[in-house]
Amino acid sequence: MTLSDRARLLISCPDRPGIVAAVSQCLFDQGANIVHSDQHTTDPEGGVFFMRIEFDLPELDNRGTELERAFEPVASRFRMDWRLAYAARVKPLAIFVSKEDHCLLELLWRWRAGDMAADIAMVVSNHPDLRELVEAYGIPFHHIAVTRERLDQAETAQLQLVDGKVDVIVLARYMRILSPSFISRFPNRIINIHHSFLPAFAGADPYAQAYSRGVKLIGATAHYATDALDAGPIIGQDVERVDHRHNVEDLKRIGRHVERMVLARAVAWHLEDKVLVHGNKTVVFA
Amino acid sequence: MTLSDRARLLISCPDRPGIVAAVSQCLFDQGANIVHSDQHTTDPEGGVFFMRIEFDLPELDNRGTELERAFEPVASRFRMDWRLAYAARVKPLAIFVSKEDHCLLELLWRWRAGDMAADIAMVVSNHPDLRELVEAYGIPFHHIAVTRERLDQAETAQLQLVDGKVDVIVLARYMRILSPSFISRFPNRIINIHHSFLPAFAGADPYAQAYSRGVKLIGATAHYATDALDAGPIIGQDVERVDHRHNVEDLKRIGRHVERMVLARAVAWHLEDKVLVHGNKTVVFA
Amino acid sequence: MTLSDRARLLISCPDRPGIVAAVSQCLFDQGANIVHSDQHTTDPEGGVFFMRIEFDLPELDNRGTELERAFEPVASRFRMDWRLAYAARVKPLAIFVSKEDHCLLELLWRWRAGDMAADIAMVVSNHPDLRELVEAYGIPFHHIAVTRERLDQAETAQLQLVDGKVDVIVLARYMRILSPSFISRFPNRIINIHHSFLPAFAGADPYAQAYSRGVKLIGATAHYATDALDAGPIIGQDVERVDHRHNVEDLKRIGRHVERMVLARAVAWHLEDKVLVHGNKTVVFA
Amino acid sequence: MTLSDRARLLISCPDRPGIVAAVSQCLFDQGANIVHSDQHTTDPEGGVFFMRIEFDLPELDNRGTELERAFEPVASRFRMDWRLAYAARVKPLAIFVSKEDHCLLELLWRWRAGDMAADIAMVVSNHPDLRELVEAYGIPFHHIAVTRERLDQAETAQLQLVDGKVDVIVLARYMRILSPSFISRFPNRIINIHHSFLPAFAGADPYAQAYSRGVKLIGATAHYATDALDAGPIIGQDVERVDHRHNVEDLKRIGRHVERMVLARAVAWHLEDKVLVHGNKTVVFA
Repeated sequence: MTLSDRARLLISCPDRPGIVAAVSQCLFDQGANIVHSDQHTTDPEGGVFFMRIEFDLPELDNRGTELERAFEPVASRFRMDWRLAYAARVKPLAIFVSKEDHCLLELLWRWRAGDMAADIAMVVSNHPDLRELVEAYGIPFHHIAVTRERLDQAETAQLQLVDGKVDVIVLARYMRILSPSFISRFPNRIINIHHSFLPAFAGADPYAQAYSRGVKLIGATAHYATDALDAGPIIGQDVERVDHRHNVEDLKRIGRHVERMVLARAVAWHLEDKVLVHGNKTVVFA
Repeated sequence: MTLSDRARLLISCPDRPGIVAAVSQCLFDQGANIVHSDQHTTDPEGGVFFMRIEFDLPELDNRGTELERAFEPVASRFRMDWRLAYAARVKPLAIFVSKEDHCLLELLWRWRAGDMAADIAMVVSNHPDLRELVEAYGIPFHHIAVTRERLDQAETAQLQLVDGKVDVIVLARYMRILSPSFISRFPNRIINIHHSFLPAFAGADPYAQAYSRGVKLIGATAHYATDALDAGPIIGQDVERVDHRHNVEDLKRIGRHVERMVLARAVAWHLEDKVLVHGNKTVVFA
Repeated sequence: MTLSDRARLLISCPDRPGIVAAVSQCLFDQGANIVHSDQHTTDPEGGVFFMRIEFDLPELDNRGTELERAFEPVASRFRMDWRLAYAARVKPLAIFVSKEDHCLLELLWRWRAGDMAADIAMVVSNHPDLRELVEAYGIPFHHIAVTRERLDQAETAQLQLVDGKVDVIVLARYMRILSPSFISRFPNRIINIHHSFLPAFAGADPYAQAYSRGVKLIGATAHYATDALDAGPIIGQDVERVDHRHNVEDLKRIGRHVERMVLARAVAWHLEDKVLVHGNKTVVFA
Repeated sequence: MTLSDRARLLISCPDRPGIVAAVSQCLFDQGANIVHSDQHTTDPEGGVFFMRIEFDLPELDNRGTELERAFEPVASRFRMDWRLAYAARVKPLAIFVSKEDHCLLELLWRWRAGDMAADIAMVVSNHPDLRELVEAYGIPFHHIAVTRERLDQAETAQLQLVDGKVDVIVLARYMRILSPSFISRFPNRIINIHHSFLPAFAGADPYAQAYSRGVKLIGATAHYATDALDAGPIIGQDVERVDHRHNVEDLKRIGRHVERMVLARAVAWHLEDKVLVHGNKTVVFA
C-alpha cells in the first residue's frame, strides 16, 4: 500500500444503533481496509456520534468517486455530516504572521523535517520583517499592511491571495483582528494560538499581570478562530512551570516556547483530519 | 440504560478487511448500541488487529449468552481471541502487600471513592503490620509468612486463598518473588509496580544509585508480572522531576508518590478492560 | 547534628548591598552552620530582598534566644521583617472540611507517612460525615454547623477551637466562606485549594462550563486565603490532561486528584517555611 | 546597572562554617551587590559545598582583577575551586553535528532569538549536508570527514579549529565518538544529548527496542561527555508520553523533539554558569 491509497472518512451525525455496521460494511464492500478507527458519542441516547476512519483502498485515485457515491445512501440514511479526505492530497496552507517569528519557525522547521503534511502555499504578514526568512525556505511572502482605517482594503487583498488557494490559515502570532466576514469564509479552518493562564487575565499585557499575580504555570491554547475573539473551539493546550525567579521577560520567553509547541501540534492534528468540531468544542482523535 | 446493560467486547486477531463490518453488524443485529469503540492494527498488512467495543444491550443479563452464541461464527471466521466483559460484574481483586502502605492506601482510597470498579476481596501480606488498616475498610486481611525455605508452602496457602476467588492480583509493593508456576495461573492478570529511572540501574538499592548518578527524573512502571522479573508487558509509566537538593530519602518519598499514581491508574485501566496484551507489549485504549 | 539543632531564618527587607554578609557573619559568630540558603530579589536596585537560611546550631534549644538577640541589630539595620522557625517545633494545624474527603485523606496519609511535618491538632467540619474517618487517625473532630443566618455564631465557635491552638488552617475543600475578620486573624496562614482552568470560568458549576467549552487541561491552585475570594497569593498550581472522552463526572474526578496533590504540596512547603509572601504573590523556595 | 557590570562567582569547597560569611563580606567590601545566590551542600558535616553568586559591580571591567585578587585569600583559606564568570563575556561555542538537523536548528533559533547567550563561533560536521543551512545564519561551517581509519587525523583537524577558540562544544547529534584525549581537553565543557528510556536499552536501534517493549515514555538526557560513553554527569532530562499508536518512526520523531528541548535547555544553563560538576553528578542552579 502507498500513501496514495490512504483516505480518512470523517463523520458526525445523530447517534443511533447501526452506524458503525453500515459504515464499515460499505467500506468493506468497496474493498477498503480499515487502518485506524476512532469514534465518540456525546451520549448513547440522543447524543451526537463522531467517527474518523482511516483506510487503505487500492487505486483510491480512480475509485474514490465511486466510493463516495456508494457512501451517499449510508450518509443520507443516518443524516451524516461527512467528508472524505485523501491523505495524498496535502492541504494548501497559509501562515499569517506579524513580527514575532517563533511560531512561524516551528512550523517551517516541522514542515521541512517532514513532520507536518502541508503544502505551505504562502506567508502573509502585516509587516515586511520576516520576508527574507520565509523566502529562504522557498515560500512566497506577501506583505499586506493593515491599518485600522484600511482594514477592509487589507482583508480584500488578503482574501484575494488565499481564496480558493488555501484550505487552512494558521495565525502564527498574527496580531491583527480578522473580521467576522473573513472568518466566516474559513469555518473551523483558521487556527489561532494565544497565551493562557490560571487564572485568566483580561486586558492589556497579560504576562505583566501574570507576573504580578505570581502564577506558577504559563500556558497556551490553540483554537479555531470564530467571531468570539479567542473563544473558539479549543484544539490543544499546554503549560510550562514558572516561579518567582522569572521576570516578565522570562515569562514571555517561556510563553513563546509553549505557544509554538501547542500551535504546531494543533496544526498537525488538523492537517491529519484528526479534529472534529461540535458546537463550540472539539473532538480530537489524536 | 443502566450499568447492567453495558458490556465490553475485547478482540484480537490477524488483521484483514471486513472485521469491523462483521463485528458491528453482529452487534447491531442483536440490538446493541455501541458507546465507545477503539481499534488498533500493528500493520494493515499481515499485522494483528485489536478492538475494544463498549456497548449497551437492553436486558443484557438475560441476553448475553445469546449474544455470545451469535458472535461465535464471526469470531471463528476471523480466528479471534475474544471475550465479553460485563460492566456490572465487577472484578474480584486481591492486593498483595508487604510493609509499605502507600500503594495499598491509594487503591483503597480510590476504591472507596468509587473511582475504581473492583471488588477488593482480600489483602494478602507476608507481614502482619497492615492488618488494622485493611480491616478498618472492612476488607479481609490474610497474613501468610513467606520464608525463603518455605516459599512453596506459602504459595500453596496464597493460592488456596485466591484460586477461583479473584480475577486480578495487584502487587502493591509486595517484596517477595512469585514463582513462575504461580504467575502462570494468572496470565496478564497480576499487576506489579516498580521504580524506573533514566538510565536504568540494576542491582541493589537503585535509589542510592540514582542519587549518586544525579538523575533528574524519578519514575515508575506498572506492568503485568511474567516469569521475566520486572520485564512483563508495560501498562503505564510516569516520572517526577528531582534535583540535587533531594537526598536518597527524598528520592524514595517522591518515588512512592509516582508509584502509587502509576499503579492505581494501571489497575483502573485493567478493571475497565482497557488493556490488551500482545506478545510482550500492551495496547491500552485509555 | 539532630533535628532539634536545626532552624530556618526567614527574612524580607528592602534590597541593598551587604545583607548577606551581615546575616551570614552573625550566624557564623553564633556558631551556626548553614545547610541550605535561598535568596531572591525582585530588583537589585530598589527591590525587595527575600532570604531563607536553614542552619544547624548545636544546643539550639538553649541558644536560640541568644541568637535572636544577636540578630536584632542586624535586622534593625536593614529594616527586616524576619522570623526564626525551629525545625523541631512542628506547627499545630487545623483542617477544615465539608463532605468531600479527598484532600483530607491525602493530608492524613502524608502526615502518617511522615511526609508532612505537622501536628494535626483537629479537624473542623460543617458536616458530621467525616467524623469516624478522622477519629480513626486519633485526631479530634469537631462538628460546627454553619448556616447562613448563624455564620457569626459558627465562626465564634470555630475561633474558640483554633485560637492560640493552631498555627495554620488548611481549607481542604471547606465549602463555606470565612469572614474577613476570621481570615485577618491568620494572615498568610490559611491555605485554600480551588479548581483552575484555562480559560477561567466564573459562576456556578465550573466543571460543567469547562466541559461545554471542551478544555484540554484541568487544574488546581493552592493559595493563601485573603478577603478577595480565591484571589490570594498563589502557592502552587498544577494541571492534568483531559479530552473529549471525559464527561463532567470524569473532569470532577480528575480535578479531585489534582486538587489533593497541589494542596498537599503547598501545605508541605508552608510547614517547612519555604513560602514567603510579598504583596499578593509568593516566593516559594521549594 | 548594565550587563557589563554583572558577574557570577562559582565556588566548590569542603563544607565548614563561615564560608558564606567570608564570601559575602569580601564581595560587599568590594562594592558588589548580590543579585542571585544559590548554594548547596552534599552534607553539612564533611560534605562538599557549592555556591553560585550573581552580582553587580560598577565598572566591573576595570575592577574585576582587583576583585579576583581580593578574593584569593578567602578562596585559599577555604580550599576553594572557584572561578569568576563575566556575564558580558559571552562564551564562544562550537556545535558538532552529523546529518540530523533538529538539535542544531533549535540552538540556532534560540541563539538568534536572544534566548541563548553564546557566540556560536563555528559548526563542525563530518558531513557536508548542513553547510547551506548554517551559513545562512552567517556562521562558519567546517566539514571534516571522519573515517574509522583516520580518526586521529580528523581529531587533529577538529582540534586545530576549536583549540583556544571555543569554550564549549555542543554535540548536537554528532554521531562519531570523540577520543578520551580530545574530551580531556574540554573537561565538563562538551555537552552531549542522547535518547533515554525506562527501562534503558543497550545495543543497536534503541527506538526499535523501545517499540517492541511497548514503552509509554520516550526521553532524552543531556550530559557532559566523559570517557565513559553516555555516562557523564547528567545536566537535564525530560520525557514525552507515547502509546501503542506510535510506530518506530513516530517514536523517533517524538524523540527528536525531546532531544532538542533537553539539549537547548542544558546548553543555556551551562552558558549562564548554572551547572557545577561534582564527581559524576551535577548541581544545577536552574
